[in-house]
Formats: sequence, C-alpha cells, structure tokens
Amino acid sequence: MLKLDFHPSGRHFLQIPGPSPVPDRILRAMSLPTIDHRGPEFGALGLEILAKIKKVFKTENPVVIYPASGTGAWEAALANTLSPGDKVLMFETGHFATLWHKMALRLGVEPEFIGLPGYEGWRHGVQADMIEARLEEDRDHEIQAVCVVHNETSTGVTSDIAAVRRAIDAAGHPALLLVDTISGLASADYHHDEWGVDVTISGSQKGLMLPPGMSFNAVSDKAIAASRTASLPKSFWAWDEILEANKNGYWPYTPNTNLLYGLNESLDMLFDEGLEHVLARHQRWAAGVRQAVHAWGLDIQCQDPAVYSPVLTGVVMPENIDADDVRKIIYERFDLSLGTGLGKAKGKMFRIGHLGDCNDLTLVATLGGCEAGMKLAGVPLKGSGVVAAMDYFAEHPLPSVK
Amino acid sequence: MLKLDFHPSGRHFLQIPGPSPVPDRILRAMSLPTIDHRGPEFGALGLEILAKIKKVFKTENPVVIYPASGTGAWEAALANTLSPGDKVLMFETGHFATLWHKMALRLGVEPEFIGLPGYEGWRHGVQADMIEARLEEDRDHEIQAVCVVHNETSTGVTSDIAAVRRAIDAAGHPALLLVDTISGLASADYHHDEWGVDVTISGSQKGLMLPPGMSFNAVSDKAIAASRTASLPKSFWAWDEILEANKNGYWPYTPNTNLLYGLNESLDMLFDEGLEHVLARHQRWAAGVRQAVHAWGLDIQCQDPAVYSPVLTGVVMPENIDADDVRKIIYERFDLSLGTGLGKAKGKMFRIGHLGDCNDLTLVATLGGCEAGMKLAGVPLKGSGVVAAMDYFAEHPLPSVK
Amino acid sequence: MLKLDFHPSGRHFLQIPGPSPVPDRILRAMSLPTIDHRGPEFGALGLEILAKIKKVFKTENPVVIYPASGTGAWEAALANTLSPGDKVLMFETGHFATLWHKMALRLGVEPEFIGLPGYEGWRHGVQADMIEARLEEDRDHEIQAVCVVHNETSTGVTSDIAAVRRAIDAAGHPALLLVDTISGLASADYHHDEWGVDVTISGSQKGLMLPPGMSFNAVSDKAIAASRTASLPKSFWAWDEILEANKNGYWPYTPNTNLLYGLNESLDMLFDEGLEHVLARHQRWAAGVRQAVHAWGLDIQCQDPAVYSPVLTGVVMPENIDADDVRKIIYERFDLSLGTGLGKAKGKMFRIGHLGDCNDLTLVATLGGCEAGMKLAGVPLKGSGVVAAMDYFAEHPLPSVK
Amino acid sequence: MLKLDFHPSGRHFLQIPGPSPVPDRILRAMSLPTIDHRGPEFGALGLEILAKIKKVFKTENPVVIYPASGTGAWEAALANTLSPGDKVLMFETGHFATLWHKMALRLGVEPEFIGLPGYEGWRHGVQADMIEARLEEDRDHEIQAVCVVHNETSTGVTSDIAAVRRAIDAAGHPALLLVDTISGLASADYHHDEWGVDVTISGSQKGLMLPPGMSFNAVSDKAIAASRTASLPKSFWAWDEILEANKNGYWPYTPNTNLLYGLNESLDMLFDEGLEHVLARHQRWAAGVRQAVHAWGLDIQCQDPAVYSPVLTGVVMPENIDADDVRKIIYERFDLSLGTGLGKAKGKMFRIGHLGDCNDLTLVATLGGCEAGMKLAGVPLKGSGVVAAMDYFAEHPLPSVK
Repeated sequence: MLKLDFHPSGRHFLQIPGPSPVPDRILRAMSLPTIDHRGPEFGALGLEILAKIKKVFKTENPVVIYPASGTGAWEAALANTLSPGDKVLMFETGHFATLWHKMALRLGVEPEFIGLPGYEGWRHGVQADMIEARLEEDRDHEIQAVCVVHNETSTGVTSDIAAVRRAIDAAGHPALLLVDTISGLASADYHHDEWGVDVTISGSQKGLMLPPGMSFNAVSDKAIAASRTASLPKSFWAWDEILEANKNGYWPYTPNTNLLYGLNESLDMLFDEGLEHVLARHQRWAAGVRQAVHAWGLDIQCQDPAVYSPVLTGVVMPENIDADDVRKIIYERFDLSLGTGLGKAKGKMFRIGHLGDCNDLTLVATLGGCEAGMKLAGVPLKGSGVVAAMDYFAEHPLPSVK
Repeated sequence: MLKLDFHPSGRHFLQIPGPSPVPDRILRAMSLPTIDHRGPEFGALGLEILAKIKKVFKTENPVVIYPASGTGAWEAALANTLSPGDKVLMFETGHFATLWHKMALRLGVEPEFIGLPGYEGWRHGVQADMIEARLEEDRDHEIQAVCVVHNETSTGVTSDIAAVRRAIDAAGHPALLLVDTISGLASADYHHDEWGVDVTISGSQKGLMLPPGMSFNAVSDKAIAASRTASLPKSFWAWDEILEANKNGYWPYTPNTNLLYGLNESLDMLFDEGLEHVLARHQRWAAGVRQAVHAWGLDIQCQDPAVYSPVLTGVVMPENIDADDVRKIIYERFDLSLGTGLGKAKGKMFRIGHLGDCNDLTLVATLGGCEAGMKLAGVPLKGSGVVAAMDYFAEHPLPSVK
Repeated sequence: MLKLDFHPSGRHFLQIPGPSPVPDRILRAMSLPTIDHRGPEFGALGLEILAKIKKVFKTENPVVIYPASGTGAWEAALANTLSPGDKVLMFETGHFATLWHKMALRLGVEPEFIGLPGYEGWRHGVQADMIEARLEEDRDHEIQAVCVVHNETSTGVTSDIAAVRRAIDAAGHPALLLVDTISGLASADYHHDEWGVDVTISGSQKGLMLPPGMSFNAVSDKAIAASRTASLPKSFWAWDEILEANKNGYWPYTPNTNLLYGLNESLDMLFDEGLEHVLARHQRWAAGVRQAVHAWGLDIQCQDPAVYSPVLTGVVMPENIDADDVRKIIYERFDLSLGTGLGKAKGKMFRIGHLGDCNDLTLVATLGGCEAGMKLAGVPLKGSGVVAAMDYFAEHPLPSVK
Repeated sequence: MLKLDFHPSGRHFLQIPGPSPVPDRILRAMSLPTIDHRGPEFGALGLEILAKIKKVFKTENPVVIYPASGTGAWEAALANTLSPGDKVLMFETGHFATLWHKMALRLGVEPEFIGLPGYEGWRHGVQADMIEARLEEDRDHEIQAVCVVHNETSTGVTSDIAAVRRAIDAAGHPALLLVDTISGLASADYHHDEWGVDVTISGSQKGLMLPPGMSFNAVSDKAIAASRTASLPKSFWAWDEILEANKNGYWPYTPNTNLLYGLNESLDMLFDEGLEHVLARHQRWAAGVRQAVHAWGLDIQCQDPAVYSPVLTGVVMPENIDADDVRKIIYERFDLSLGTGLGKAKGKMFRIGHLGDCNDLTLVATLGGCEAGMKLAGVPLKGSGVVAAMDYFAEHPLPSVK
C-alpha cells in the first residue's frame, strides 16, 4: 500500500506556481459531509457562492463554475463562443498560451498564433500593438476572438489586458476578447467588466488556494449572445443549462460539492482580509523575491518590469547549468518543490511560486532552499538573496489587515 | 457568512443514491497537502492508482480518469468514439438514459432512443432482444454504438449488460458497446472485459464513496482504435494524450490531486475488504430494504426481480400521495435525505440509496425515518418495514470479511 | 502496525453513556494548530472560554478547568476542600458514587457511605431525608462535606440536588455540598448557584461532546474559603494558582490547548442551539427510549420515574440472561457499543446512552440494534421498541431551534 | 464568537520549545471517532501503545500514561514515592527545576534545593559532584530521592543523567533518582534503564509531537516498591490500579482516547524513521542554529558545550535590550512564536525551539524571522545567522532514513 506521507519530518514546501499550498481552514471546510445537491441547503450554498465569486472577477455578470480542472475552462470558452473553422487570434506569451493554441487546433477552429520573434515572447507580455495591427488588417472581421493569457504561469509575466482591450477598440474590431487568468485570479489585479473581457477563464488551484478540480468562465452579455449561435458541439461545457440552473443555486449535473465548500471558505477568507490587501500582499512578496534574485546576481525571466508577475518569478540559470538539476537537488535536500522550466524554457530556468497559503517566512524558507541548493549545484551567486529579501520584507511592512 | 453546518445535533443521513456518504477515512486522505503534479511522488501515486482502478472495472485495459464530474465522462465516451452525424442506439431505462440521449443530440450525433412503451421502460431493464432486433435491421451497419445504462439511478434497475453483449454478437453487428455504470461501479457486479464493453463510464461519488468531481472511461482496444478516426472535436476529453502521460503516472493537465488521494484510499478500502464482499454487502442491504417495502405493503419501482438494483430501491407512493411531500416531511423532521422522483417519475416515488459509508443500523435508521415520515404524511402502511428489515439483517449475517 | 479503523463499512454507533460521539465540527476545531499557551492569542481564547463555561454550570462563580480526565476533578474537589481525617458524608447511588467513596478513603479522609438497603440504592436517587437525618445527628458538625452524584452514569438516575441542598439547610448544617455531574452537565438541567452547590465536578466527554481529557470544578466562595485552610496536599489540583492565572486567560502550567479549541466550539454549539433546547432534546430522547423499553416489556433500571435520567437508560435483562452476552452479540453483529452493567449491576443490565452527537434516527438505529440483538440472544420481547420510539418521536416534535 | 484562526495568510511558525508543531498526520489520527474505553478494540490499542512507548524511554519496565498534562506527572512521581516530611534533593538548573521544587514544598515533602551560585546554574547542567558531596554528608540516608531535570526547557541545557547515577552510586546512597525529561524525550537521547533512573517524567507536547494533555511516569522496580509504603495521599496518580488495569490494555478511569490515537501515530512515525535517526536530526538542527547564533555574534544561554540541548537554544540579548521586546516584534511582524525568558532569565534571552514537525527550511525561516526582527529591534548583529545555518545544513546532510 502506497504511503502518501512521503516526508519524514516537517511540512513539504510547495512553492510551484500552482497548485498552491491549501490553507488548513479550506481543507477543513472541504471535509464537511457531502450533501444532497438537489436539496434546499445546497441551493442556499450555491446562491451564496455564485454571488460572491463575481466580486473576485470584478464583474456584475455571471460566472460559470465547472466541476473540472482549469484546462476544461479553456475548452469551455472556445466551445461556447466559436464554430468550426472560425478564425481566432492568439498571442504566444509562453507554454500555456502554446497549449491553448494547440487545443484550439484540436477543437477545429483556425487559430493564428502571433508573438515576438524567437524566445522574446516568452520574456515579455502580450504586445497590444501587434494585436491592433493584425486586427486592422482583418477588414472582413473574419477573426472571431482574440485569446490572450493574463498571467503566463510558465514565465512569470502578467500582461496588460486593458491595453489589449484598447487595441481591439482602436482597430474597431468586433472580435470577442477571451482571457486566461487561471494563475492570476485573486493574486494579480483583474477587472473583467472594466477591461471589457468577454470570457475570463480561471481555475481553483492558484490564488483561490483550493485543490485543483474546479474552473471558471466569467462571461459577458456579448459572449452569451455568441454562444447562442456558435456551433461547436457542447454539452458538458454549455453555458445555457448551467446559467439556467444557477438561478436557483443548482447545477444541471452533479457539482463537486466539497470543492464548493472550499471555494466558499476561500471567498470568505479573501473578503475578510480584503481583496485589495490580498493583491498588495502578492505584489510585496514578488518584490521581495526579485530583491533576492538581484542579490544573487541572476536574471529574471521576465524582461519587462512593467509586467512582472505578482504570482511567480522565473529565475534564469547561467548557460552551463541545467535548471532541472538544480531543482532536483533543492527538492531532495530541502523538501522544496519549485516549478520546472516548460516548453522552450526547459532546463533554462526554474519558477518560484509566491501564492497560496504563504507568509514572509515561508518565502524566506523558500529562498533559503533555493540559495543553499544553488550553492550545492555550483551556481555562482553574487550575494545572499535570503538576506536581501528579509531586509526588503522588514523595511516594507504591509498595512494592517483592512 | 453562510453556515455550512446546517443541522443542530447529530449527523445528517444522506441516503440518496449518490453522492453517497463519504467515509471519514477518505475525507482524511483528501486532506493531505496537495503535491506537485509533475514531481516524482505524484508519478508513483499515479501509477499505483491507475493499476488498482482496473481491478474495480475488472479490466486489463486502461482506465482514463478525468478531473471532472460524471456527466463529463458521458461526453468523453461519445466525443472520443463518434463523428458528427453518427447513428447511435440508446435504450430508455429512465431519467439518466434520457439525459444521455439529450447530450448525444447536443453533440451532433444521431441517437435513436428505443424502449418499452409508456412508463414500462422505467420499471424494467434494458431489453436485449429489442436491441438485437434493431441491430439486425441495420444491415448497413450505420449504427456506430449501442449506449445503455447499467444501473439506472433514477429507478433502481440494474440491467443485464452481458445480455446486451450477446444481443450485439447475435446480430453480428460491429457497433461499439458504451455502458454507463456511474452509480453501479463498486456496488453492483461489473465486468468490463468479460462482457465485451468498449467504453465503461463511471464516477467517483457513488460506490467509490468519494465526493463528486472525478469520472472514468474504461476503454477497449476497439474503442481506442475508433478514437483515432472519430471526428467529433475533443481536447480536454481526448484519450490519446492522457493515455500517453498515464504511462508514467502523470496527466497532460492538472489532475485533481486531492480527489486522487481519496480514490487511492477508497481502492485500498475496497480491496482490504474484498471486492466480492463489498458487492455481497450491497445485495444483502438491498434485500433487507425490499423486505421493508414489502412489509409496508408498497410497490417497488423496479418490476423485474431479476434486475433489482443493489444500490438503490425506488419506493412507489399510492396514487393520491405526492412523493415529494413525503420526502419533505422526512427531511425536515428526521434529517434524512432521500432521492426524489426524476423526470417521468416525479412525485410518484422516492429513492432510498443503500451505498457508501453505511452499515445495517444506518439502513435501520433510514427505514425508520421513512416509516415514521410516511405515517406522518398519511401513507397507509400494512406493517413495519423497519422490523422486517431488522429481522432480515439478523437472520442473514454477512460472511466475515474476506 | 495497529489499524485504528476497525470497522469495514459505515460508522460505529457509540451509544455508551460517555465518551459520547464527538461532532465533526468539534473534531475539526481540535485540529487547529497548537499555539503558544503564553502568547496573546491564547489569553483571548482563555478569557472567552472561562466566561462561556460558567453559563453551562449556571453560575456566576469561577469554573476551574483541568487538563486531566474527570476522575481528576473528583480528586481536585476533595483535595482543595478537605484535610486529612475529615469526615464526609457520601450517598451510594451506584458504581460511580462507590468509586468516589473509594477515592476518598485513599486520600485519607473519613467518608461515611449511606444509602438505601441492598440493591435499592442503585435503582433510586439520593434520598435527601436520609442525608437530613444523618446531618441532624451530627451536632458537632464534624462532617465537612456532603458528596452526591447528580447523574449516576452506572444506573441512569438523576438525583434531585435542590432537595439535598434543602436537606442540609433544614439540618442547619455547615457542610459543603460537593456534586458530581460528570455525565449530567449540558444534558440534564443543572444550577450550580441556585442549588447552592459548593463544588460541582464535571468532565468533557459527555454532554459537552468532547473527547475525554478535560474536567471541571465550579466553585462557590465558601469552597474557595475552605481551600485556604484545608490541608490535604495539593499542587496540580490547587485552585489558587489556577484562579490567579485565569484572570488573564492563562493557566499556571501547560493547558490542553487543542481540547480547549474543542470546548470553545462545543460551547458555541450549545448556545447557538440554546441550552434549554439542548436539555429538552435530551429529555425527549430519553422519553422515546423508555417507550421502547416499555414496548419490549422490559424493566428500566431506575425505578423512580421522577429521577429518570435524560442522558442514559438502563435496560434490565430477564433473570436468566447475561446482559454482557447480549451486548457482545449487538456489538459484533451491529457495530453498536452499549454500556455494560458496572459493579453490583454487572450482567444484570445494559445501558443505552442518548447523548452527544445524536438525533432521532441515531436512536432509532440504536434501538433497532438492541432489538435485533436481543432477539438473537433469545431475550423474550413483548413488542417492537423501535416502532414505539419512532411513533413517540413522530408524535412529539421538538420546538424549532431557539 | 472568537475566531481561532488568527493569521490572515500562511502558517504560524510555532518555534517555542513546546508545545511543538503537531504533524498533520497526528492531527488526522486524533480525529478518529472516540471509541468505548472498555471495549475490545480499546484493549488492543492500549496493549500496543503500552508496549511501544517503552522503547522511547529505553526501558523494559512499565510506563504509566496519565490523561493529564506534564505537571501532573511531576506530582505523580512525588506522590507515589514519598511520604509527608520526606527529604529530597533537587538541583536548580532553571525555571522548571524551580517550579518542581515549589511543587515539592506544596505537597509537604522537604526539598533541599542546591545549585551553582548566582545565575550560573541556569547556564550549566546538573553538577553531579555537588550531588555526590551532598549525599555523602547524608550518613543516615534521610534523603529519599534525588530530583533532576534532564532537558531544562527554560535554558537549553541537557544535563548528564548517567553522571548523576554514578554520583549516587559513588556515594553509596539508596535515594531514588527521579528525572524530568518532559522536553527531552524523543528529541534528546535518554536511557531509563541503563542510567538507573527510578522515575522518568515526560509529557506529550514536545518530542512526541502531540498536543498537550498527556504525561508519563516510567518506573523502576525500586520505585514501585517504594510506592507500596509511601504515604502521601494518592488516588488519581496512584500507579497500582493503573498498572493492574494496563495488563489488559485498559485504564482504571477514562483515558484520553483521542490523544492515545495521536500517541500511537507518533510512535509509529518515530520508529518508521528510526529513533536514532530522530535523535541525530535534532542534534544536527541544534548545531545549525548554534552556527547562526555564532554568526550573529550573540551568546548562547548554555555555557557548557558538552550539554547544549538538541531541543532548544537560548539566545542571549545584549545588556540594554529587552528580549521580550524583540520577541514581540518578531511575533507581530513575522508570525513567529519564540520562547520567552522565564524566571531569572526574564527579558535576558529568548528561546528557539527546534523540535516537533520541522525541517531544515522551517528552521531557516525561523532564523530568518529572528534575524530580521532583531535588526528591526536594533540588536547589533555581526553577520547573517541564516546564511551560516543554511551553509551548515547544506554541508551536513543527514544520512538517509534508517
């Protein structure tokens, strides 16, 4: 029989950019007994959650909750709004943008994948001007949707979505704006309504601090209108029946009740602390982690300070060092999981997640593990990142809660 | 802030035919910390689970695990094996067969829905001879798949799948056999390989005693072959990438780690007890519950004793009584949730689930709540069902574990 | 490695008169991380609990909380108020009164143990007139304390403590009144102040629905005054340092923090429901259980209806039947634990606990297990107790919460 | 209603020298349902635990387990072996030795309290030669017991108990040897039998990683013999009835069942890892922490390297700094609890616990919090302790488990 508690002493440090460490408070809520998903208690719970979740997306519109992990919500966004052969414009910001593009191909739409040349796109954010230029070329408005990733989990770049909206508007183009903020929601600031997003895609296992298994589509009226005529086959992902059942707090099929308990608790935690405080907390952590990287004399994956991610930081290894070898040492010696380099970034960098159930000392521990592990791996370091981050945290207290 | 603990004293009795009561042992396993789904521990866990789950389906073939609730696995079975416009033959055994038929329509295949005339199909199992007759008519083999529900959760009928297999073979027809045993798996005997099923669909929240949010496709070689040419769009549900990643115990996208912990624990519980013992336990409970219904002088929804479900029993109310009024009294006075009558059965009957984390006394309590509630609701009862069931349980001990 | 989950399917029914079934809500609270018992959070928690616990004892005076199980609180009551050789008057109501008497002997005081002749004292409550008569004889007031058990857990008799107070007053005697309501508190009505009790002893694992390991002394001013001169050695149990530290919410030595979390949750549950509602709930359950015993044609251990316990009911077996054989069958066949006959009652009766995390259907299940087990054991039963109890519960709804 | 989750984000770092952080695995075990403490399952559990616990004390003799916190076990050791007015020799190693001395006074024995002059005793271990000298003076063998603290929690000094045994033997004195290793057990090496200890006192909330509420007396034959004639009153603490009931795995009164579940799990964890590995782990942590203190240029409370504690390290503050002010800053800014200076050490030092559910990075975080907090408090530091500890941990890997 497999032993699930692998570590002999102490808690594992899970500092990948999601799944993030789940607070005990949420694990406890998730262990409440499963109830009848057609009973009166469930309806009350459903209505409460559906109302509260909107505030995290900063929308007045409905948010569809799927009992499926985040990749499903990508598919849902496409399947509800598009028809076979539809053209969509996607921007290559990294590995997850690439996977979404691959999904669009499989689903039978015609994605066009643009981006900065070479590896540059993976070190910068979405270039709104390139989108504007491409849309202006599209005189017949064949492009049905623009798809961008808000917080690119593979690189640590948080693109400027408001700028993308302005670009679409400047081009006078009617394309829908579909945005993936799976790893950004509740950690990086996000405005579904204000930024004019049509479908926002997100998941449970990042800033919401839940285990994976739940995902979201926040939808605009325009997106709902599109879903009425879009002809990609859809049933499990179809918004119509879900939105109808949601009116009374239910779902057309069995929802994942215990994760909904966790979501309810997560939302209470976010609002008890204050969502703006939560966002500031992540920005401060990210700044401290970057101080560490600077002190080490290493490079940050994201080369544009305007779009540094508050959720994760990519740390670039010197040319002759395989980042995965470093990660392996850190994992085995210090019980610390870091994010691997994905796709084009494989072996070049590792990713430090600074989200979920963390605090200053969690990050000090994380940076300590990185620093000690890099030394063991022979990475030349200019100075102590841990000390730099500690100093930053000490000198920059967060305002007290609320 | 919503209070999730609704009941002032004692445990709620959740005796719906799923989600079933989750054992504390599983809830405890699910509260282990989420780990890196790309790390070495995860691979070990994945391989272990993927090997063990096969034994529950009684198959040597792969079982695909989705981080999505059961309805998704219905869609997966269709999307992987069919192309737009394909003809499929479906059999109306009840509400869930009807919903599956509706899904097939939405996905753009052409389902033909056959069954016994009137309400009869909802009180009997799949009629293999009708399937054989229909397939024989289909000389050109236009029908690509036969879709049947093994344990119809809305009625308490467990159809004879081996007979359906024999019918297809007798007709010499190449159609795939797709079987939904969402509520049957691990409670009602099931043989994916022996019965020649091509895709078996199941879910987590019934006999596996997990919360909802996970589902399964057990697949035959023939089904996998079909998936290579079938042209319904598929990405999240696509078997190919999952089967590839599963070879090393991983998934192509984020799996629902904590439910996988629960599944691992569930499988250990089933095999520790012995799967055949688990199945015998459900048969014995069902027999006891039927004794109660007989003692009350009421009718069982399933009219064919050969296909009584070991998972749930439908109890038919007298003509002038609304079953949902009875359920409401039982719920409010005795903190007991029963299954509602669905679709054509609405108001006519209620359903008692006898699955999940139960024992003899749980069912005595359940039947006690039913009996007292029916009395309060004015249902005329011939005798005491509780006493009848207790006597049955006392006289029919289970053989000791293993 | 020992497996702690002994039962293959479903929840064990723990219907002994304590430890009582612990609500999951309390288990969850107890799993919060242990904090610094000298830190600021702890002080806030301590003050909150110390204020709330008074309401359960119905006292304005302090309640001392021990990180020790109930027997310790018996010793604490004696050690704080008495000197070696002191005379105390104790009343034999059953096994626990007998054990307390034995403890007094060991501690070096001189207990006088009075009671009804023969087995009668174990089937009736404290006889206040006998106490009054004995105290009147004690012209020199040599008796320092009267010790009685409020709810005798071994018999199911809840004595009239107000009558004992009146008896002491009528005798014009200055003796302290020490009362054990270990199994009565929060299930049977109790008034520390109004009844003029000097030390009330209680424990965590009964009506407070906590695991064992915590106990209480509610103390009067007179008791505190006595503790200043009483000369039995005392340190761990000494009130003085505890009362001093309690002023700021702390303890002089390490308290059992996680059980205090549980106690805090328990008190919230009791007051959320309303303490009077909780007490009425237990009375109603006890009445239903007695209906069952009557229907079976069996005898209740307590022969005085005025002092039937709301917490437990002793069921007397026919002469030729060993009650422990019956209990064994019930335990092995129905996963139900009942209380054994203790001391003089060994083999003569078993005890049904109706306290803790229960509801009507829990008791229906319990009575079902008793009924079926007694049949298997050959106990002749006149009728169905389960049906009688169900009818009683159906006809006597509790008023809605608060 | 008081909120028990005080911290807005992340886990509190509880690095006091006990209660120590409790592993989730133990919290999970403690949440198993309470069972009948007189039932057959309990007996099996009791026997298992009573056998396993001996191995931690390294004794073949019985270990008495109390459902009471550690201070109670001090009282038990004295109450079982001594009579009123008995002389005992106690050695002042710090605050807890002082409290034990105070308890002896309250219990009515005549303790003599010796030690190094001034504050020196609080910075060194037990001086065996002083004990030998005092016992040699006691020609009439009036001293009944020698009482010493093995791991003085208030200072971080782990005295040499074997040396004390040799001193007693050298003096040819028959006094019993009573040793408190409440905070040493399972973290610092201990040999009850080999060192000839008569009563070893310990508690649950330190190296055993349990919440507080359980304590121990490991007893020699000589101690048991003494308990038969010793005349201090004893009942709750009396060994005789407990040892008798323990033969079958039971206790004479209600044990704290759920903490016993935790203890069983704790023992499995210790033996799975290997007790010697556990002890080496603590020594290595202590060495790393001392590297940090040296790097800071600060003083360690313990001035004798031969008796540095593997459990905690006392860090002495410069003369003009109040250690409690530093602790307050660290607590408020970094969510880290450190041990306060107790008694004579108040304000002079703080204590870092390195025990319980920890690992290298937990300690890196802890030292980081100390370092940043000391800087904020104006403590002059010579260098970075965090970096020194990290380097130590990196250069000194633990041998792999077992």
